[in-house]
Amino acid sequence: MYVFAGTFLLAAGAHAEEVTAQSVSASLDTIWVMVATLLVFFMHAGFAMVESGFTRSKNALNILMKNILTVAIGSILYFAAGYAIMFGNDAGGLIGTNGFALSGHEDQIGFFVFQAVFAATCATIISGAVAERIKLSSYILLTVFMTGLIYPVAGHWIWGGGWLSELGFVDFAGSTVVHLTGATGAAVAVLFLGARIGKYTNGKANVIPGHNIPLGALGVFILWFGWFGFNGGSTLAADPELIPHVITATLLAASGGIITSALYTHFRYGQIDPSLTLNGALGGLVGITAGCANVSLFGALIIGLLAGFILVEAVQFIDKKGKLDDPVGAIAVHGVCGIWGTLAVGLFDTSAGLFYGGGVSLLAIQALGIAAVIAWTAIASGTVIYIMSLFSPIRVSREVEIAGLDFAEHGSSAYELRESYLSQGAGSSNKDFGSDLIDRLNNLHPHVKNVKTEQSS
Amino acid sequence: MYVFAGTFLLAAGAHAEEVTAQSVSASLDTIWVMVATLLVFFMHAGFAMVESGFTRSKNALNILMKNILTVAIGSILYFAAGYAIMFGNDAGGLIGTNGFALSGHEDQIGFFVFQAVFAATCATIISGAVAERIKLSSYILLTVFMTGLIYPVAGHWIWGGGWLSELGFVDFAGSTVVHLTGATGAAVAVLFLGARIGKYTNGKANVIPGHNIPLGALGVFILWFGWFGFNGGSTLAADPELIPHVITATLLAASGGIITSALYTHFRYGQIDPSLTLNGALGGLVGITAGCANVSLFGALIIGLLAGFILVEAVQFIDKKGKLDDPVGAIAVHGVCGIWGTLAVGLFDTSAGLFYGGGVSLLAIQALGIAAVIAWTAIASGTVIYIMSLFSPIRVSREVEIAGLDFAEHGSSAYELRESYLSQGAGSSNKDFGSDLIDRLNNLHPHVKNVKTEQSS
Amino acid sequence: MYVFAGTFLLAAGAHAEEVTAQSVSASLDTIWVMVATLLVFFMHAGFAMVESGFTRSKNALNILMKNILTVAIGSILYFAAGYAIMFGNDAGGLIGTNGFALSGHEDQIGFFVFQAVFAATCATIISGAVAERIKLSSYILLTVFMTGLIYPVAGHWIWGGGWLSELGFVDFAGSTVVHLTGATGAAVAVLFLGARIGKYTNGKANVIPGHNIPLGALGVFILWFGWFGFNGGSTLAADPELIPHVITATLLAASGGIITSALYTHFRYGQIDPSLTLNGALGGLVGITAGCANVSLFGALIIGLLAGFILVEAVQFIDKKGKLDDPVGAIAVHGVCGIWGTLAVGLFDTSAGLFYGGGVSLLAIQALGIAAVIAWTAIASGTVIYIMSLFSPIRVSREVEIAGLDFAEHGSSAYELRESYLSQGAGSSNKDFGSDLIDRLNNLHPHVKNVKTEQSS
Repeated sequence: MYVFAGTFLLAAGAHAEEVTAQSVSASLDTIWVMVATLLVFFMHAGFAMVESGFTRSKNALNILMKNILTVAIGSILYFAAGYAIMFGNDAGGLIGTNGFALSGHEDQIGFFVFQAVFAATCATIISGAVAERIKLSSYILLTVFMTGLIYPVAGHWIWGGGWLSELGFVDFAGSTVVHLTGATGAAVAVLFLGARIGKYTNGKANVIPGHNIPLGALGVFILWFGWFGFNGGSTLAADPELIPHVITATLLAASGGIITSALYTHFRYGQIDPSLTLNGALGGLVGITAGCANVSLFGALIIGLLAGFILVEAVQFIDKKGKLDDPVGAIAVHGVCGIWGTLAVGLFDTSAGLFYGGGVSLLAIQALGIAAVIAWTAIASGTVIYIMSLFSPIRVSREVEIAGLDFAEHGSSAYELRESYLSQGAGSSNKDFGSDLIDRLNNLHPHVKNVKTEQSS
Repeated sequence: MYVFAGTFLLAAGAHAEEVTAQSVSASLDTIWVMVATLLVFFMHAGFAMVESGFTRSKNALNILMKNILTVAIGSILYFAAGYAIMFGNDAGGLIGTNGFALSGHEDQIGFFVFQAVFAATCATIISGAVAERIKLSSYILLTVFMTGLIYPVAGHWIWGGGWLSELGFVDFAGSTVVHLTGATGAAVAVLFLGARIGKYTNGKANVIPGHNIPLGALGVFILWFGWFGFNGGSTLAADPELIPHVITATLLAASGGIITSALYTHFRYGQIDPSLTLNGALGGLVGITAGCANVSLFGALIIGLLAGFILVEAVQFIDKKGKLDDPVGAIAVHGVCGIWGTLAVGLFDTSAGLFYGGGVSLLAIQALGIAAVIAWTAIASGTVIYIMSLFSPIRVSREVEIAGLDFAEHGSSAYELRESYLSQGAGSSNKDFGSDLIDRLNNLHPHVKNVKTEQSS
Repeated sequence: MYVFAGTFLLAAGAHAEEVTAQSVSASLDTIWVMVATLLVFFMHAGFAMVESGFTRSKNALNILMKNILTVAIGSILYFAAGYAIMFGNDAGGLIGTNGFALSGHEDQIGFFVFQAVFAATCATIISGAVAERIKLSSYILLTVFMTGLIYPVAGHWIWGGGWLSELGFVDFAGSTVVHLTGATGAAVAVLFLGARIGKYTNGKANVIPGHNIPLGALGVFILWFGWFGFNGGSTLAADPELIPHVITATLLAASGGIITSALYTHFRYGQIDPSLTLNGALGGLVGITAGCANVSLFGALIIGLLAGFILVEAVQFIDKKGKLDDPVGAIAVHGVCGIWGTLAVGLFDTSAGLFYGGGVSLLAIQALGIAAVIAWTAIASGTVIYIMSLFSPIRVSREVEIAGLDFAEHGSSAYELRESYLSQGAGSSNKDFGSDLIDRLNNLHPHVKNVKTEQSS
């Protein structure tokens, strides 16, 4: 057992009060929520890798800057204002009005920081959809409003004791609060921005491939890993029955999303599509976020299986019919699957869902909540973007877009890989160096000589 | 302290029952096992990065698809059937027979999900060994049998109360159950598949270098990180003495594996070999998995030191003498070091090991268990693969292999890095764009101008 | 609830003693510190990615080897000697003298392993600064002394009950103990080594860009994630008020560092500098490490905001005026921001800081501690390096440096990306293969055809 009678800072002060089963239980709740907070924070690494990997190398730095600035701005703004608006007391159920900078709510700091990493998540969903052509300054200003006002108001309605929560709207971990809010903002921003140069030519939707799918795949794994904290931490307590249920539901739903997106792309295109399958995992995760505590494991699996199918259809529809250029599929993943997940609670909720004899009333409330959140977010973010665009275009110039935002906005590039190094392997990469060293080393290490296979001739 | 009298979903319901020291203790056990579950889940990100980084870029997407599909299929299959076979009641000690889809075992959901991420780990070990030439459909079918039947049966014998556990076989976290089972399946699959084109020419084993070792190194760090949950969570309880012991033993064994693989490659080849040193870390981890709770810290360090040496020898032997083409060294890491780790318990177990006066009886039981698991897994996986191959070859065609599985099986590629961008840096990469913008930007940012060093001339 | 009456190893043995609120509380403390231990361990993945991403591709393997060997050597050395020197009993407050290999301190194993991952962190800070030209063997020898002696002595003074702790020096999680110690060693090593070839020409400091900034950015996210454990675990107890405070302070300070480094580079260079902004996050983290438990949330935010500004100035000063070639900015991040963070406690400590009416006495003690740690580390590491250099140069030869350490020291290369594959996409990459397969596949997958945009013509 860890007991250490040293002279460490504060260790002596710990447990100064009497320890009771109740006090340990409260501490355990906090520890669990803090672990979950860190997992949700880590999702930002996942977003950063997905968004930079799935876009072009000439814009990779710019996207990474958007992602890290979103965490910084989101955390500070949510501390200054967002949390108060979301969880402060109100009259009328529309908006919280106290607790700015946690003033008077210092005892809620653990809950605050868990919510703060959620707020930044909502904002960062937008960065993927607007990638490769939005001005960094415009994106930053939009992030300020998303984390400081728009998301907190929607959150207040549903999690802060507002009117939707009064109606009985169910969104356990945020399919609507976080994901649909972010995706709606993303869709509005994309409508204002228009498509990237070259995306639609002669009425045809071209694929602009991502530059580093392994990095994007890593991002998906990181997001999934963090999502267990996102959903699991939303229990807000170390509940020994609920947490394993939520984690298992999250695992099965994401697995379901992978299976159907892989199978459906195989059926539709003749082969498993890697990008859509990776997005299928995310679709399953968004889909189960609302209901992970309220549906059975079978329900979770079915929600995920359907999410994978919906995701593929939504990506194709938005891209080809909607002509909305969303480089990473954020609107489909977070928006369409967010809607699906929220409605699915109305179907699969084991106490009030349609399939469990609960009738359509919960389903109707879920639909109303979806409509309300879309309306609020679209109007608010649309207004913000419209006013911004009165002062200056929110989109970079044509020449900047073609040159790449990394060079134009940051004067830098994401990669510096030497051509010869890349194409020919270590030995020959130093050919022009003309030193005997190479020969000596080649003789020293015959085991690392590059194989000459058919395809490299 | 986190106390919040809000209106959050379910928070009100938490701790509805009376809180006692016993109930908090049980909750804490669950929280620890859930944290460990997430860490083990994250190991799949590590496997994905190791396996794609250590192989060629033309097959990277295909490997990533194998990895993510393994998690999805493994989770669902283990839920549907594997868990029941592994932990259900039996007669005779051979196979569990109840609890399919957790039916009647809903109270075991936390334990189930911890075991589910283990099952997927076992299956994913195969994907590295068969990389770059197995058909995706064949791999998927093999994964179905591994997670749904083959692994659960071996697991039942050792962890599910079966005949090996009755004999006293010790495998705390799965050197045999998970790693040797996976590696045996890998070896059998490789025997059926044969070597990659160009691997063996004129009786000589060529090195086919991995395409992105930094990504592979990241994968090793992620695996190590997750392994603390793999071993630490296998305590199944928040034991304040055992968990630190297990974590420290895991840290020291992996460190030992690094040291000896680095030193031994330096001694043998004149320089430290990066790939073998990274695999040395994994060898140390596999080696300590069986005994992490049963050996002393010194024992752990010695097991790891020997594992690093064994790993280097095993990789060379399997590659050069065995002529088994295992692109990532999975058979050596998980198989040979898995055997070593399992036998090492017979030597270093502080209560029954040979070096602690326990005689050879435990060592004999460990050896018997190894033989039994190899036999079962080889026969079962061999049968599955043989039957598959009666219907269709499990290996892709020669032209597909040369073209790369990414293009042939997915019609896509892992990277889209522009040549000029790569070779010349941001400034000159846009030379052909011919705009004054470049010059203006260059003047604006003199601090980011690329240095002209000797080697870039 | 997770209850499982199975036959699992050791599960039966858990909780054999009577469970009381006190025993559960102690277990919870251990669990929290173990979770934090794993997070700190994972920081090594972050260091590895930051250091390899921010340097050139020809040295990437070498840096990765330095990082993984540091963890291995650090863990074993700290176990063998470092921990005893740091936390053993002493007379005179200078150095601990018992507990080698935990002998007689087996009950401190949880605390030991938490401290062991800290020790390796201190050492790995050096690896970034000396990258691209130090001999691997010289680096390894320096790491042995850093983790086995130099860091433990500094740590003893501050955390082990030594003379600085007696004076009241405050360094909660190690701005000085860990970061300044590492950075001082780094600065001394850089002074001995000199700048990389091509870094300073005609008195001008050239920028040598990193080769993979997305990987570096991932490293920063991983470091930030791990840092929550670094600071949060330093509570050494599951304190439900202090832990959320520390985590929130850490989040806000890093956010502050990002904001000001981004704004200041925008103000100074006309655009947001990605590398400096990423380092700004780390600067904020180093800055809050000393005071995270002792300052208010506003104090944390201000410390972080100033750290971002200080970081940018420090990087420029060290690079241009100091002519110290530190490829990743480690001296600025860990050294200068470490000093700032330590002094900031003297200003912002809510019980004894200057701004809270505490006068200058704490500030003076903090300054004394900084001076003492710099002096000790500089003298000790300088002596070690000097003696090493008497036997053999610690720097690689000119031709090895130009060829790249990966090839020269490891006979290998970090990347093997095929040129044609990179430049032209999947379809055309196989042009020379000349098979009908390509055409057939292209017809099969019209949706994955590469877009021809203006810029790719």
